[in-house]
Amino acid sequence: MTSQPGLTSTTMSPIPNGTLLFNEIPEGYPEPGKTTVYDTTQTIDLGNIPLNGGILIKTLVLSVDPYLRGKMRDPAIKSYSAPFLIGQPLTNHGVGLVLRSENPDIKVGEHITGVISFQQYSVITALKLSTVSVIAKTEESIPWSAYIGVLGMPGRTAFYAWREYSKAKKGEVAFVSAGAGAVGSMVVQLAKLDGLKVIASAGSDEKVKFMEQLGADVAFNYKKVDTVSVLKKEGPIDIYWDNVGGATLDAAFGSANVHARFVECGMITTYNSKEGYPFKNIFEIVSKRITINGFIVWDWTDKWEDEFYRVVPKKIASGEFKYSEDITNGLEHAGEAIRRIQTGQNIAKSVVLVAEDKQ
Amino acid sequence: MTSQPGLTSTTMSPIPNGTLLFNEIPEGYPEPGKTTVYDTTQTIDLGNIPLNGGILIKTLVLSVDPYLRGKMRDPAIKSYSAPFLIGQPLTNHGVGLVLRSENPDIKVGEHITGVISFQQYSVITALKLSTVSVIAKTEESIPWSAYIGVLGMPGRTAFYAWREYSKAKKGEVAFVSAGAGAVGSMVVQLAKLDGLKVIASAGSDEKVKFMEQLGADVAFNYKKVDTVSVLKKEGPIDIYWDNVGGATLDAAFGSANVHARFVECGMITTYNSKEGYPFKNIFEIVSKRITINGFIVWDWTDKWEDEFYRVVPKKIASGEFKYSEDITNGLEHAGEAIRRIQTGQNIAKSVVLVAEDKQ
Repeated sequence: MTSQPGLTSTTMSPIPNGTLLFNEIPEGYPEPGKTTVYDTTQTIDLGNIPLNGGILIKTLVLSVDPYLRGKMRDPAIKSYSAPFLIGQPLTNHGVGLVLRSENPDIKVGEHITGVISFQQYSVITALKLSTVSVIAKTEESIPWSAYIGVLGMPGRTAFYAWREYSKAKKGEVAFVSAGAGAVGSMVVQLAKLDGLKVIASAGSDEKVKFMEQLGADVAFNYKKVDTVSVLKKEGPIDIYWDNVGGATLDAAFGSANVHARFVECGMITTYNSKEGYPFKNIFEIVSKRITINGFIVWDWTDKWEDEFYRVVPKKIASGEFKYSEDITNGLEHAGEAIRRIQTGQNIAKSVVLVAEDKQ
Repeated sequence: MTSQPGLTSTTMSPIPNGTLLFNEIPEGYPEPGKTTVYDTTQTIDLGNIPLNGGILIKTLVLSVDPYLRGKMRDPAIKSYSAPFLIGQPLTNHGVGLVLRSENPDIKVGEHITGVISFQQYSVITALKLSTVSVIAKTEESIPWSAYIGVLGMPGRTAFYAWREYSKAKKGEVAFVSAGAGAVGSMVVQLAKLDGLKVIASAGSDEKVKFMEQLGADVAFNYKKVDTVSVLKKEGPIDIYWDNVGGATLDAAFGSANVHARFVECGMITTYNSKEGYPFKNIFEIVSKRITINGFIVWDWTDKWEDEFYRVVPKKIASGEFKYSEDITNGLEHAGEAIRRIQTGQNIAKSVVLVAEDKQ
C-alpha cells in the first residue's frame, strides 16, 4: 500500500500513538492511573496503516462529559449507552482532522465530528463512518471545540429538551442545577430568552459569577447557601432542570409549584455512589401534579436539529449566547479531566485539547 | 321554627348525633381513640335545627381513603387538600339521605353525594351545597356505596388518569401496585380492556385472589414474593401505576422499559413515615426516558367525566367491571377503618356503613 497525499511526508515510519485506555471499573469516583491509564507504547504508521474504505484522523479536541461515568461499568449491566471495555480506548464526542481518506465524500483536510477514540490518531472504518459527520464551513468562525460543546451534544441536549419539555411561559420561575456546566449554561440562557426568572446553582463562586454573566437572576453556591432556603425564598419553581439528582432534586420537589415540569437530564450525584438518596419530598409529584420527563438527546434529533442550527450558531457567533470552556491540554491529562467533572471541579464545559489543527 | 314534612315525627326532641372527631396529629399510623375519637355526647334536634337555606342529611355511607392521612397534619403545612382541624369532625366522600331541605332543587327523600362530615346527621349549609350533588336515579340499580367507590372518587381517579396518562398500547405490560384497592382494581380492569398484560401486587393472598378475578395476568403478594424478581421475570414494564411509592416504585424504576409512563396516584408508604426511601434506581428516569405524571382527580373532571359516565356505570351494572368492598359497620368503628387502610389490612375499597336507607 502506498502512502497518501494528505500527509506532509510520503514515507513515514511508525510514531507513538498516545491512547487513554479503560483499565478498571471504579468503585466510587474514577481515578486517573487506575480507572484509566495513558498508554504511550502503541505506535501507528500514518502513511501505511490500512484504511479499508475508511479514514485516518488526527484527534484535535475531545469532550469530557458527566455521562462517561455510566460507561465505566460492568458490561453485564444494561444501560442506554454501551459500556467501555477493559483494555480498550475510551471514546466520546470529538473533532478530528482528516489525514487520509478512502471515502469519496470525505476529503483530506476536512474536519469531522462524532464519537471518536481517546487516541492521538485513529482509523474510522467504513462501517463506522455513518457515526461521524463532516463539519460544514459555516459563515461564523467558531472554534472547533464549540462543536463538542455549545454546538455539540451538550448544547443540543439543552436546546432539544428545553423546547420539548419545559413548556416555559413568560414570567415563570426556572431552577437550573449545575447551571455553569456545558448543558446548564445553555439552559439558563434559553430560559432567559423565554422571559423566565432563573435560579441557578453550582458548586463554586467562580461558577456563580459565570451564571450571573449568563443572566441568571439568582445564582448561588450550594456549598455555601442552603438550596432549600433559596428555593423557599425565590420559588415556587415552575420548571426544574435537573443535572444532579439527590438532595437538590428533593429540594426542588419541596418547592415545586402546582403543575411544575421537571426535566431530568442527569443525576451526577448518583453516578459515583451506590447509596440511594432518601427523598423526603417525592410525594409532591402527586400533591403538586408534577410532570417529570427523562430524555436522551438523540431521541429528539429529527424533531429539533433544524431549529437548533437555525437559532444557535448565529447567537454564538454574535456573542448573544455565551459559553465557557474548561480546557485540559494534552490527552495524557484526560483521565484527570474525567475525574474533575465527576467531583464538580470543572468550571465550565470540559474540553481536552489533544493537538493543533495542522497536518 | 316549625318541624319539617320529611321527618316521620313532627315533634322531635334532640337525639344523640355520633361524631368522629379529629383529636391529635398522628406521628406514625393513625390510632383510633387517640388520633380520632368517637364522640357520643353531641345531640341534634332533627326537626328544629336551623337550615338557613341548606339541607339536613342522614349519613348512609362514608368512604375511607388513603389520602385522609395527609389531612391529619399540622395545618401550617400546605398541601393539596385542606387539613383536618383538631376537635372538628372528619370529612370525606359519602352519601346522605335528605331529611329536610330549604333548597328548591333538592327534595326530601333524595340522595346526595359529596364531601360530608363523619356524623350520623349533619346540616349542609346553603354555601356548601355546591360541593354535593343529587344522585340521579339511573337505569342501573347500583348500591349507594358504589357512589363513593367505583362510581365515586376512586373509580374516577383510575379512569381519568388511565385515559389521560397511560398512553396504553395493546400488548404492552402494565404494573399496578395496590391492585386490589379501590383505585387499583379499576386500573387492572381498564388495562385488561385495553389489551395489556397486567402485573398486579398487593399485600395478602385474599387480595391476590381478587386481582386474579379481575383478570390480572400476574398477581402476587409482595410480602411473600420479591417484587424485583417478579418484574425482572415478567417485565420490562411500559406503564407503572403507583399507589404506594417507596421500594415498589424503586423496583418499577429498575424494570422500566424505554419510554415507560409512570402514573403517580399515591404513595401510601410515605404517609406514615418521615424517613425518605433511598431510591437506588431513580436514574432510570433519565436512562429509560421515563415520563412521570402526578395528578389529582379533580383536575380532569371537565375532560373525562362524560366519558366516565358513558362507559363505567353500564359495565358495573352488567358485571363486566367487578368491584369489591371492605365494609365497616357503624360510624363508631370508622377510626379503625382509617387505620386499617394505612396498614394495608383492608381487602378492597373501604366503606363505612353508617345507617340504613330509611327516614
